[in-house]
Amino acid sequence: MSLVVVGSVALDSVETPAEQRDDVLGGSAVYFAYAASFFTKVHLVGAVGEDWPAEHTALLVKRGIDTAGLQIVRGGQTFRWRGRYLPNMNDRETLEVHLNVLDTFAPQLSETQRRCEFLFLANGTPLLQEQVLAQVTGPRLVVADTMDLWIRTQHDELMRLFKKIDGLVMNDAEARLLTEDENLVRAGHAIREMGPQFVVIKKGEHGAMFFSEHETYVLPAFPTPDVVDPTGAGDSFAGGMMGYLAAQGNFEPRTLKAALAYGILVASYNVEDFSLERLKQIERADLDRRLAAYRQMLNF
Amino acid sequence: MSLVVVGSVALDSVETPAEQRDDVLGGSAVYFAYAASFFTKVHLVGAVGEDWPAEHTALLVKRGIDTAGLQIVRGGQTFRWRGRYLPNMNDRETLEVHLNVLDTFAPQLSETQRRCEFLFLANGTPLLQEQVLAQVTGPRLVVADTMDLWIRTQHDELMRLFKKIDGLVMNDAEARLLTEDENLVRAGHAIREMGPQFVVIKKGEHGAMFFSEHETYVLPAFPTPDVVDPTGAGDSFAGGMMGYLAAQGNFEPRTLKAALAYGILVASYNVEDFSLERLKQIERADLDRRLAAYRQMLNF
Repeated sequence: MSLVVVGSVALDSVETPAEQRDDVLGGSAVYFAYAASFFTKVHLVGAVGEDWPAEHTALLVKRGIDTAGLQIVRGGQTFRWRGRYLPNMNDRETLEVHLNVLDTFAPQLSETQRRCEFLFLANGTPLLQEQVLAQVTGPRLVVADTMDLWIRTQHDELMRLFKKIDGLVMNDAEARLLTEDENLVRAGHAIREMGPQFVVIKKGEHGAMFFSEHETYVLPAFPTPDVVDPTGAGDSFAGGMMGYLAAQGNFEPRTLKAALAYGILVASYNVEDFSLERLKQIERADLDRRLAAYRQMLNF
Repeated sequence: MSLVVVGSVALDSVETPAEQRDDVLGGSAVYFAYAASFFTKVHLVGAVGEDWPAEHTALLVKRGIDTAGLQIVRGGQTFRWRGRYLPNMNDRETLEVHLNVLDTFAPQLSETQRRCEFLFLANGTPLLQEQVLAQVTGPRLVVADTMDLWIRTQHDELMRLFKKIDGLVMNDAEARLLTEDENLVRAGHAIREMGPQFVVIKKGEHGAMFFSEHETYVLPAFPTPDVVDPTGAGDSFAGGMMGYLAAQGNFEPRTLKAALAYGILVASYNVEDFSLERLKQIERADLDRRLAAYRQMLNF
């Protein structure tokens, strides 16, 4: 099943208590696409500037990702983000943001992309997400991500978007902010009642929760001692989840739970090194081995 | 298998953002014993004052708990704690502590209690826990709880205790404090290397982790939307876990995981009302039904 992701493509600079990296490959669409590529063909839609290293595109192509939708803007510079993680490796502060080409990014999907069956609207303004959504014809599953900034500043637009999407992923702090409820079980269901048929709340080191009308699941994170850089964990989670769903082509409870598990496991690898360094070292078979261990852990 | 718990018996006053209760039944030994009583016979060792309502003892006796070790100190007053939960229902501030009879509490185990096979040393000073431990003869499993205060002020005594116990339960903040490591997977194993054969880290709404030399498990909390009062969650968790272990009498990986699950499920009921109100309404069959739903949730 064809899967399209529309989102940011970035050069990230990341500071952790132990180490630092400058201008490494990042961005929501990149993490998502790379994670999803373990399961299915992904079409990436995004924009970069003339400073974009061709080797990054080559890396994505090597994974079978379709980069036809990656626009190189003449005279433009690639989106850059610099952030610093606090010692808990969960909270972070943004030190610098240079939108650059993202400032005027108005994605135009190709004919092939418009006919996609699975669409992931990575974090962006609700208006931009809506404009992308308006271009696709009859998708089977549309999932969106969002962030605290839009919850605070574009609430009405977000509510309108929620009524048009099938699924929503957000993190625990965002869910609490949106609902003003500290209890994530209540928050998850409350958000579902705002429109989406299902809601996934990402809890970082504590795993993820899934809410639909008749189902509530919580799965723990895979207990890795090697958390080097959490950047992209949420997007690689979403990529693993949607990549698996697109590959399976059904939304049975077991499939949804397995999709959630694969999302958690891709993210567990992703955080074990900076940028895509750890994911570059693994194959689908590694994910399946970790899934077997994870299943075993949850079986008693 | 005989199970003894030594710990506090209290009259708690609890303030939550929604409600308040004064002088309700509480204390680590009470929550532990009540939770364990769903699985096995428990012998409670503790002290109260002359103000202790006889109906509280009657409630424990009704659950089959042996209260012969509950000493009523003449002229004494029962330990009282008053606390307030923050809106996240996880963090709390202690408003008042009146040690009363606990100030001079020096438990003397009876002959029967000394021969117990399973012993839980609920939170108390490491010295007191050690004094109790010195009285038992050949127990099969000794598990202790502790708290941030002893980690800060009685570190050496705590380290000595750790070398004498089989298992240790503590919460996530305490594990981080003790190891100065934010990563709970590393922290759990580091604490295990301080002495105990296994360590359980309680994560409140995020479940619990288990660490032994060859095993690392994480299980999520049961997703209940009804968190009314978290007081006693940690002790009812420990009671469910040890009660089940004492009933099974073996420490196979599957048994340990099921014990962890039952601990999580008793705690999930416990937080649904103040004091023991919710636990008073349920039976073992309710726990088994919730376990079936929990197993189903974790199966994909």
